[in-house]
Amino acid sequence: MTSPALQIALAHHRAWTGKDLDLAMTYIADDVVCDAPAGRIDGIQAYREFLGPFAQQLLIRAELIAAFGDESTALIMYDTETIPAKSAPAAECVTVRDGKIVYNRFLFDRTPFEEFRRRQ
Amino acid sequence: MTSPALQIALAHHRAWTGKDLDLAMTYIADDVVCDAPAGRIDGIQAYREFLGPFAQQLLIRAELIAAFGDESTALIMYDTETIPAKSAPAAECVTVRDGKIVYNRFLFDRTPFEEFRRRQ
Repeated sequence: MTSPALQIALAHHRAWTGKDLDLAMTYIADDVVCDAPAGRIDGIQAYREFLGPFAQQLLIRAELIAAFGDESTALIMYDTETIPAKSAPAAECVTVRDGKIVYNRFLFDRTPFEEFRRRQ
Repeated sequence: MTSPALQIALAHHRAWTGKDLDLAMTYIADDVVCDAPAGRIDGIQAYREFLGPFAQQLLIRAELIAAFGDESTALIMYDTETIPAKSAPAAECVTVRDGKIVYNRFLFDRTPFEEFRRRQ
């Protein structure tokens, strides 16, 4: 694997899917911007509040489907088994600068999570 | 671009987002399997019935966000402007064999489309 951006994206991915959120956040820039299904997430604290509950409360396990990258961009798709849904895949297209993720286009289907929330 | 799978994925993508569904389907294998948010789609006819209404009735325009591939796999992410949603991004991870897409893991957020359907 020769893509520097992909190395960072995968290190981040392995950390948070392994439920080590502190390690995962070391790969995120302080001024990260993330465009997620529900809207824009601005800054590392908001990013942690977005990812943390999913990683720590809902995620059972994750499995990489595909991962590619070049100097500054990485694109990964993975499936997750979660409490709300047996299969909840996601894709992330991240921009990496100086070893940190500065932008993430984060894509997943909100439907199973909204159905779960309504049932709670 | 040296990835044969990505060439096929992008040719298919350009065709259907250009609303040329007949051309788009020439890149799809007869026995294609597509795992989409609402479940599995089996065979080229079902695939066309899945993609056609979106391409021909809801899609305004599409813009590629990132695209990577190797010999047999391509991973693309793109945004679409649609009648239900100003921004409805999607990601596709396709497996290509003999110049045709035989498998597609198709990912998008169903929420804006379900809200649109409920409003109709």
